[in-house]
Amino acid sequence: MASKPSIPKGTRDFSPAEVSKRQYIIQTIKSNFEKFGFQPIETPSFENSETLMGKYGEEGDRLIFKILNSGDFLDKISGDEMATVTSKQLTPKISEKALRYDLTVPFARYVVQHQNEIEFPFKRYQIQPVWRADRPQKGRFREFFQCDADVVGSKSLWQEVELVQLYDTVFTALGLEGVTIKINNRKILSGIAEVIGASDKLIDFTVALDKLDKIGEDGVKKEMIEKGISEEALVKVQPLFSFTGTFADKISQLSNLLSSSEEGMKGVEELKFICDNVATLGLSTATLDLDVTLARGLNYYTGAIFEVAAPKTVAMGSIGGGGRYDDLTGIFGLKNMSGVGISFGLDRIYLVLEELGLFPETVSATSKALFINYGDAEALYASQAIQKLRKENIKVELYPDNVKVGKQFQYADKRLIPFAVIAGDQEIEAQTYSLKNLVTGEQVALDFEGLKKALLA
Amino acid sequence: MASKPSIPKGTRDFSPAEVSKRQYIIQTIKSNFEKFGFQPIETPSFENSETLMGKYGEEGDRLIFKILNSGDFLDKISGDEMATVTSKQLTPKISEKALRYDLTVPFARYVVQHQNEIEFPFKRYQIQPVWRADRPQKGRFREFFQCDADVVGSKSLWQEVELVQLYDTVFTALGLEGVTIKINNRKILSGIAEVIGASDKLIDFTVALDKLDKIGEDGVKKEMIEKGISEEALVKVQPLFSFTGTFADKISQLSNLLSSSEEGMKGVEELKFICDNVATLGLSTATLDLDVTLARGLNYYTGAIFEVAAPKTVAMGSIGGGGRYDDLTGIFGLKNMSGVGISFGLDRIYLVLEELGLFPETVSATSKALFINYGDAEALYASQAIQKLRKENIKVELYPDNVKVGKQFQYADKRLIPFAVIAGDQEIEAQTYSLKNLVTGEQVALDFEGLKKALLA
Repeated sequence: MASKPSIPKGTRDFSPAEVSKRQYIIQTIKSNFEKFGFQPIETPSFENSETLMGKYGEEGDRLIFKILNSGDFLDKISGDEMATVTSKQLTPKISEKALRYDLTVPFARYVVQHQNEIEFPFKRYQIQPVWRADRPQKGRFREFFQCDADVVGSKSLWQEVELVQLYDTVFTALGLEGVTIKINNRKILSGIAEVIGASDKLIDFTVALDKLDKIGEDGVKKEMIEKGISEEALVKVQPLFSFTGTFADKISQLSNLLSSSEEGMKGVEELKFICDNVATLGLSTATLDLDVTLARGLNYYTGAIFEVAAPKTVAMGSIGGGGRYDDLTGIFGLKNMSGVGISFGLDRIYLVLEELGLFPETVSATSKALFINYGDAEALYASQAIQKLRKENIKVELYPDNVKVGKQFQYADKRLIPFAVIAGDQEIEAQTYSLKNLVTGEQVALDFEGLKKALLA
Repeated sequence: MASKPSIPKGTRDFSPAEVSKRQYIIQTIKSNFEKFGFQPIETPSFENSETLMGKYGEEGDRLIFKILNSGDFLDKISGDEMATVTSKQLTPKISEKALRYDLTVPFARYVVQHQNEIEFPFKRYQIQPVWRADRPQKGRFREFFQCDADVVGSKSLWQEVELVQLYDTVFTALGLEGVTIKINNRKILSGIAEVIGASDKLIDFTVALDKLDKIGEDGVKKEMIEKGISEEALVKVQPLFSFTGTFADKISQLSNLLSSSEEGMKGVEELKFICDNVATLGLSTATLDLDVTLARGLNYYTGAIFEVAAPKTVAMGSIGGGGRYDDLTGIFGLKNMSGVGISFGLDRIYLVLEELGLFPETVSATSKALFINYGDAEALYASQAIQKLRKENIKVELYPDNVKVGKQFQYADKRLIPFAVIAGDQEIEAQTYSLKNLVTGEQVALDFEGLKKALLA
């Protein structure tokens, strides 16, 4: 191979520093998922094609990576058929498996397949990569991790209360203060559409309303009228254009607006339950905000809708989202399995923590000290200390080769190892170790206990 | 979809209990890799096909999972060509990417691609899944994790010494005492073949010798003669058939046998260096054993060869292996990159720990206590305690629905949650919590501090 090797577009190699930072985020999410009673599951990277196909719409089907059958995959297809076959016709004949596109469909499949082993309500979390044949662009990858927590088998709104607390707890633990947890409810949106006599225009209405920040009240109204929403309707929803104040104020405005819609009032009631209880329990650093323009996942969310915005100082889209769905597993023949879930956007959280300098300095797999190698006798003396230090959970390493000392120090420097330990003739004679701080240049001679203490500090 | 959904053969769903146990093993390996100075990297799940193809022999090429190109992948192939094309001819035209088959080739690709960012010697570890289209059978899967640690860019035998210590440290940390770390050296095997004038029959010779346990001395000799090894040669290698005693004894026998082979004597010297230093440093629970029949990876190992055997009480193949290779990256155009590495067999280690009952009871993501739900007012009272307990890192959860208490207790039972917390009218009145031990049935009323203490215990 003449040219330098490369990786497929849209994929990434992660360096040691990157893996350590990603693991820090994942570990923080994971430990809090478990603290909230969620249990981990893992599913295979590829599923049978019929499990995935048709679950994400036509566009989704196109973006699913298909795996070519092994062996002589053409053996049952005639030459005549091959001569005229299209890619679309050929695909199901030569591919039976596909890489998972998200964690939700595999989760639904898991619940149905293992329904007799599962104790419901089932609180599961899953942190695994997914693959999409999307056009790669800045911040969009063909392989990326999803971090999902869901509860299925319960309609209790206490779950929504807990999921808001979970978001607050995780972002607080990551030091990311000031996130906004936006909440809305599908029933509120349906209620508004109902009240204004435009139930068939729910999506058009919400898409336009969502642009309020960008194009202003007049712009939104103009777009709504273009979409066929009446002038009278716009008068009715006028309160939405100046929808501010406390959570209680907003709830009260919505109650007035939606008083004639049973579904809308159910949405108001649900929101009120969640927000009252969250308020009583209190959040550490996040803010819960009712946002009637929030309309993600309208094809599947049936109750609460969540989205988390990074602190306003950072230009970044949502760093998390979720909602309640009435029917997770119907696609696999198991009815009435209501659930609610949230997810964390690992890649974006990484970028936010990086931009705000929030990764702790201790997040690194780098050794605490490098023992300089002066030859085999000295290396053995060093190795004896190294062995004891590792038993104290201190990360230390021996430079493997007896090369020029300058080169060894340079290695420590480039690797960002903070200390070097020098143990030559004199130190062996005195049974000591010279510990050199590679930042300050300071050097002290220590016995083993002193060395251990210094490296544990 | 009428029938119950399933997963592709050779793949697995992992339940919460299984994920927790797997994570416990992985975490133990990972933390010790880092303690020994290894740094994590991660590479994409799929590589460009040319990176993988041709690196694992013809059989390997067949077992690599290929990914179908997205979109209209037939658009550049004429109907005429299609009518007569074979699967083998078509594959490279419709597939440019493939799932990684192991972690070694992606590592080599990584080293070459990032050679300017890497400080050598590069000590890397990598714990990620790999995929092989092997015929599934008991204990052999199409998706499984590999856990590899390698050092490249140094020929120092101190690495071999450290890798033996690393095996000992990890298995000791897992409570798996009594493993045998078998060591051999490719140069010993070459030396033996040289001494008996059968350098061209190295593989035949080692394959036969490896059967000593099963078919006995006579059987091995018969097979060697059938393979064209002379009677005189067999007389020369007679010592190998009664190759016992201490490490030093074995080294001395090998020195006699191989005195006329420069390469063989180099192998003896290397083994002696590793074993002397390991002996001086000492192992915690493992035993290092020279095994001249060990001949894994002869196509690529050039120095030390390692294999770890589970304690004799368990019927299980090797649970780890590795060795030194002279040229990791030559396939990608970077010469002279010697390395040495070991790997841990996650699935087999799991089975061994399970069989010997070595998983700690604490390895579980299950909550410590379930708060019984008696209605919204009680649930809020419970949630306030739950919130404070979680801040103490105690895993607790609220049963989400106000259903029959018996059902809630049954849920705790099935989930193996050890405690239930009862907080109804009386407890709210008294500002207490009744903590019920679900194993003994014992119940005590506690204030919050008492509850916290009991659950932290």
